[in-house]
Amino acid sequence: MIIRPPTNWLRMLFVWDGSVLKTIVPQLLLILAISVLAVVTRGHIFGARIPLDTVPFPLVGVSLAIFLAFRNNAAYARYVEARQIWGRILIAARALTSQVINYLPEDGDGFERKLFVQRLIAFVYALTHQLRGTDPSEDLARYLSREEAEELRGMHYIPVALLDRIRLMLARAGRKRGAGEPLLWILDAQVSELAASVGGCERISNTPIPFAYGVLVHRTVYLYCFMLPFGLVADLGMATPLVCVFVAYTLFALEAIAQEISEPFGTDPNCLALNAMTRNIERSLLEQCGEEMPEQLEPCKRYNIS
Amino acid sequence: MIIRPPTNWLRMLFVWDGSVLKTIVPQLLLILAISVLAVVTRGHIFGARIPLDTVPFPLVGVSLAIFLAFRNNAAYARYVEARQIWGRILIAARALTSQVINYLPEDGDGFERKLFVQRLIAFVYALTHQLRGTDPSEDLARYLSREEAEELRGMHYIPVALLDRIRLMLARAGRKRGAGEPLLWILDAQVSELAASVGGCERISNTPIPFAYGVLVHRTVYLYCFMLPFGLVADLGMATPLVCVFVAYTLFALEAIAQEISEPFGTDPNCLALNAMTRNIERSLLEQCGEEMPEQLEPCKRYNIS
Amino acid sequence: MIIRPPTNWLRMLFVWDGSVLKTIVPQLLLILAISVLAVVTRGHIFGARIPLDTVPFPLVGVSLAIFLAFRNNAAYARYVEARQIWGRILIAARALTSQVINYLPEDGDGFERKLFVQRLIAFVYALTHQLRGTDPSEDLARYLSREEAEELRGMHYIPVALLDRIRLMLARAGRKRGAGEPLLWILDAQVSELAASVGGCERISNTPIPFAYGVLVHRTVYLYCFMLPFGLVADLGMATPLVCVFVAYTLFALEAIAQEISEPFGTDPNCLALNAMTRNIERSLLEQCGEEMPEQLEPCKRYNIS
Amino acid sequence: MIIRPPTNWLRMLFVWDGSVLKTIVPQLLLILAISVLAVVTRGHIFGARIPLDTVPFPLVGVSLAIFLAFRNNAAYARYVEARQIWGRILIAARALTSQVINYLPEDGDGFERKLFVQRLIAFVYALTHQLRGTDPSEDLARYLSREEAEELRGMHYIPVALLDRIRLMLARAGRKRGAGEPLLWILDAQVSELAASVGGCERISNTPIPFAYGVLVHRTVYLYCFMLPFGLVADLGMATPLVCVFVAYTLFALEAIAQEISEPFGTDPNCLALNAMTRNIERSLLEQCGEEMPEQLEPCKRYNIS
Amino acid sequence: MIIRPPTNWLRMLFVWDGSVLKTIVPQLLLILAISVLAVVTRGHIFGARIPLDTVPFPLVGVSLAIFLAFRNNAAYARYVEARQIWGRILIAARALTSQVINYLPEDGDGFERKLFVQRLIAFVYALTHQLRGTDPSEDLARYLSREEAEELRGMHYIPVALLDRIRLMLARAGRKRGAGEPLLWILDAQVSELAASVGGCERISNTPIPFAYGVLVHRTVYLYCFMLPFGLVADLGMATPLVCVFVAYTLFALEAIAQEISEPFGTDPNCLALNAMTRNIERSLLEQCGEEMPEQLEPCKRYNIS
Repeated sequence: MIIRPPTNWLRMLFVWDGSVLKTIVPQLLLILAISVLAVVTRGHIFGARIPLDTVPFPLVGVSLAIFLAFRNNAAYARYVEARQIWGRILIAARALTSQVINYLPEDGDGFERKLFVQRLIAFVYALTHQLRGTDPSEDLARYLSREEAEELRGMHYIPVALLDRIRLMLARAGRKRGAGEPLLWILDAQVSELAASVGGCERISNTPIPFAYGVLVHRTVYLYCFMLPFGLVADLGMATPLVCVFVAYTLFALEAIAQEISEPFGTDPNCLALNAMTRNIERSLLEQCGEEMPEQLEPCKRYNIS
Repeated sequence: MIIRPPTNWLRMLFVWDGSVLKTIVPQLLLILAISVLAVVTRGHIFGARIPLDTVPFPLVGVSLAIFLAFRNNAAYARYVEARQIWGRILIAARALTSQVINYLPEDGDGFERKLFVQRLIAFVYALTHQLRGTDPSEDLARYLSREEAEELRGMHYIPVALLDRIRLMLARAGRKRGAGEPLLWILDAQVSELAASVGGCERISNTPIPFAYGVLVHRTVYLYCFMLPFGLVADLGMATPLVCVFVAYTLFALEAIAQEISEPFGTDPNCLALNAMTRNIERSLLEQCGEEMPEQLEPCKRYNIS
Repeated sequence: MIIRPPTNWLRMLFVWDGSVLKTIVPQLLLILAISVLAVVTRGHIFGARIPLDTVPFPLVGVSLAIFLAFRNNAAYARYVEARQIWGRILIAARALTSQVINYLPEDGDGFERKLFVQRLIAFVYALTHQLRGTDPSEDLARYLSREEAEELRGMHYIPVALLDRIRLMLARAGRKRGAGEPLLWILDAQVSELAASVGGCERISNTPIPFAYGVLVHRTVYLYCFMLPFGLVADLGMATPLVCVFVAYTLFALEAIAQEISEPFGTDPNCLALNAMTRNIERSLLEQCGEEMPEQLEPCKRYNIS
Repeated sequence: MIIRPPTNWLRMLFVWDGSVLKTIVPQLLLILAISVLAVVTRGHIFGARIPLDTVPFPLVGVSLAIFLAFRNNAAYARYVEARQIWGRILIAARALTSQVINYLPEDGDGFERKLFVQRLIAFVYALTHQLRGTDPSEDLARYLSREEAEELRGMHYIPVALLDRIRLMLARAGRKRGAGEPLLWILDAQVSELAASVGGCERISNTPIPFAYGVLVHRTVYLYCFMLPFGLVADLGMATPLVCVFVAYTLFALEAIAQEISEPFGTDPNCLALNAMTRNIERSLLEQCGEEMPEQLEPCKRYNIS
Repeated sequence: MIIRPPTNWLRMLFVWDGSVLKTIVPQLLLILAISVLAVVTRGHIFGARIPLDTVPFPLVGVSLAIFLAFRNNAAYARYVEARQIWGRILIAARALTSQVINYLPEDGDGFERKLFVQRLIAFVYALTHQLRGTDPSEDLARYLSREEAEELRGMHYIPVALLDRIRLMLARAGRKRGAGEPLLWILDAQVSELAASVGGCERISNTPIPFAYGVLVHRTVYLYCFMLPFGLVADLGMATPLVCVFVAYTLFALEAIAQEISEPFGTDPNCLALNAMTRNIERSLLEQCGEEMPEQLEPCKRYNIS
């Protein structure tokens, strides 16, 4: 995720870091080349004029507007939902920590509060690594015993397994305290919330926007931009390359942003800052327990925070 | 569902598998034929010029844009909701398994955990088969006793019947454990969640988008495309077929995608991968119980996963 | 509701049953007449040319697009919400049946399971008849005793009264079983869900989309279509009637569909199939109880199902 | 709120009551005057031609469409949410009445059912009056004792105070019945639902759509309409006033409707019928208690119901 | 937030306070300068005509409309959600106060109701200050003991810490009352609601709309407006500056509003009135306890309320 301090409107026009411009430079150069070709040949290829004028472009524009708006909205909805799920993880993890500290306070009944919160933090790290497809070993080792980390390594659904272990701790505490079941329910509801978040993340991660949309948008945008210079050259003359590259920039850039945010758990600059959010949850839970907190993650020089 | 690894922007222009292009080839050929006819006759039929110019197309374009955008959004909303319901099935099935394992652990009280989870998996398979209209016998036989499978075969609402049996197991366990009703409530809430998912799936499956919309969109799109060549031929000349087929492609393709995803439980390439999701639930529940898991389903060569 | 099997793209162009075409034929004939008049007089009335060209139509088109899109979305949102509420009724009625069967199983405690489910089915019928403004007597007589049906006849909020009686049965069962209150809560939550559905249906039924929108959309659409022939005749000549009727068809049809689905509990062809859904709930509850089920309702020859 | 029986399409064109036409007549006359001036002067002022042609209008149209669509959607969302909140008040008040009647039936334990329902009805009236800024004394006097009404008069948050008193009655009943707390919870949930509705109404009432939007939409619409005659007069000649007034009507009317429904608790013709809804809740609760019901409120001659 | 009484349509055209006009004056002057330059040079720079006509503007308009509509909707959604969260804080704080007063009434069991409500109010102030990045010391000192305020000052998540202390008070009261756990649950649910609101506010505050959108919208809007004069000057002549400044005003203003409301917890004129809402919660809770209330906050002369 890009976190930049606000700049004034003039400098904003020349921002490089954090814009998607860098990912679409090759395509823009291609459009520039086609435009220059159209200007040089005055719209003729092999002596024959390409008979495109500006008439068809508004017609295609209708489809284009629908596709791009739809795709962009669908992608942003996935991004927002992913962010909301991570917000709910923070909320549920905090609630569970607060409830365990205040409602299950005696260590004498065998309930290990510290171990409980460590497993909770390990769960958040495990989910991050599952979503990014990275190796959780190092982070799990910080909060779990070596045997437990070893057991988990062979499993396919690690965050689910960690929640099962968290539930087992609650069940044991409930049984020891006797008629503790109403309390059990309060705590179980938060574990269910965490489990629902895992399912939500897996859903977003496993089910992309239907592939055919991507193909359709892509083809429409590119064909539109390839035809544009031949349509505009008669009217605009020398200004054709400028206008075509500008139009192409707006369309390619929108497609590129939508592509990035439609997979919000990725590592592109416009994806969610999973690492920073995980660290934030870790810090908040540790402060609730009165433990020392690690440093907050900060954006790098290029304003990116992963 | 099509699951393809990302390709670069150039190859994306020529993708065949996973695009809806193959389903609309006949219609596109028809438009091509009409366009060529318009070019050849210079827009005349039986010597009389078809007096269409480009004026009316933007007028129809307003209606067209509204219809297509609406239909597409409505279809996608159904697709997303269907996927969310299946996400909730995964979440509730996992929660029920975790709760049964941790909160009802003694086999001595007559509660058969293994049978419980088997019925849960059978429920998911039964729902998949009901939604796709296929025969559930084979899959049910893997997880239910022969008598139980036989009893269910004659029924009309099989997933509902399986949930009723799951509730009966909970009720019996609750009665044996005495004042176990608060616990019963925790477990019953998850069964209700599963039952709500069944109702949600039936709703999407039984209530299509109002038929009149489909007719209206279809007619508007096709009449628009049939008239287009005669409107453009005077301005575009030889380029008419290219432009008309391109415009028709964007409109027909959008209609075709919307049609497919508006019935998300079907078997078209852009429908949900019910089989893969069912297998995923099965695998996750079995791992929670420490049982062996079957293989994950993978996309076929043409990137399709059912 | 129209339920038609999918047809191919060509036959779809000529569908009559289920399209709204039949309801707007008179208006389309009027537009046809105006268009022909415009062609015959070449846009002159009493010798003076009506000085409309195509310039103002895109300007009005902006407003038109906003109005139609808004009205259509608002109408469809009502339709979808109404359908969701009926889905929730099915879900809650099934859950209540399942819970009563499994958690209140002894007939010895005076709880009459059969009477309970009969009242539940009567409730659904009473709601259907209230929403459609029809007489519930016949359907109530099938499931209620004569005295009870008589008592209800004089009341204004019959479904609410039936839910009150259902709650009374639960309260009595709860008192007989002693400390049964946690169980009472599980059951009460489902009754509350049914009561919330009644309130939701009444809300949709009593509060239309603000009337002024309908007037505004209607006037804009009709004035637009009345002026269209005089604007197009200079450019299109003989093709004017064709284009005008086509444009008018798309606009009138959209307005007509939106009108129908904005009152989803009505009996127009695009309204919800309340009768079929009621029968479906009845059948599902009876199967859960192991009773015989009546036949499912099927679409009539004209594909309509009420 | 306007409740009119459906009329046919022709009479709908000439509806006066319930349309917003009457509120925008002065502005439309101004546009008419400007248009006539433009026709008379052929677009010249002080001998110099106002050099506007139709080119800029589609450019401004883009902004205009976004502003109007956004503002209208935002306003309608407020209207719908306000209506939903009032639907929830009906649902929660009915549920509370039903639960109190069925679950707290003995008058011997000191719980006064009648007083309870009276306070509930008084609460609804108090909320209506708070939202409309009217004096609740008369309506409160019908359902509260004089002292209680007197005490409430000095308070700032009267509905909240009434809910506090309702909760106090529940708390006392709970304490008298001993371990009645699970029941208390069922009842408290409904009181919380009513309190949430109060908060929701206050939110809509206190936080308008950001003021700057209204200014921006207003200016854009009016400047657009003021410039329109000078842009169209060259092309349309004598038809200019007709077209300009028509375009202005669609834009002004949409702005006026959006303004009215964005404050749904007001008393404009398109606001919610708070009085009728309050009466409906009163009637339903009284029927549940078996008491006599006052008459339903009906629309006045001009189809308005407050 | 701007709270202005409604004015008539004419004065609304000249409103200065509360419109965003003042923030975009420099940019509008630049556009004015460019337009005048275009008029003076008749679109020539260094003797060469800038070959832009009006053709490309509708093409860019498609992208522009999508970007602006999307950005504006996304920003408004954040604003609405932020307001809803603060509405929920009011609701939960009131509910907790009401429940504590009515269900935990005896001071004899060591539960300090007054301290409880003070901590609740301190929590709301702490959240406001965290979101605005201001120093909470002064407001906390009014409701907390000096030691407690001192302890909190060193912490990073102060509202979370206050909720943990509130939960501790509930836990102690629950333990003293014995089997008070069902009651504990009612109260804990409201604390969880407050904690969820904290998480929601942090989410909106920490995760802006993806930065790349802002860059893309900004560039498109400005380049569009910079090119506009050269495109329009041939057609509009002397009217070019008027039209260009008007078009630029609508676009710049929309961008500026969207920017302000996308950070709803800021202090710009269109942000939420956090201070007034906090005071309102304070007042309502104090009235519920029968304590004296501070004055309500009122808008300043320029209609602004922070």
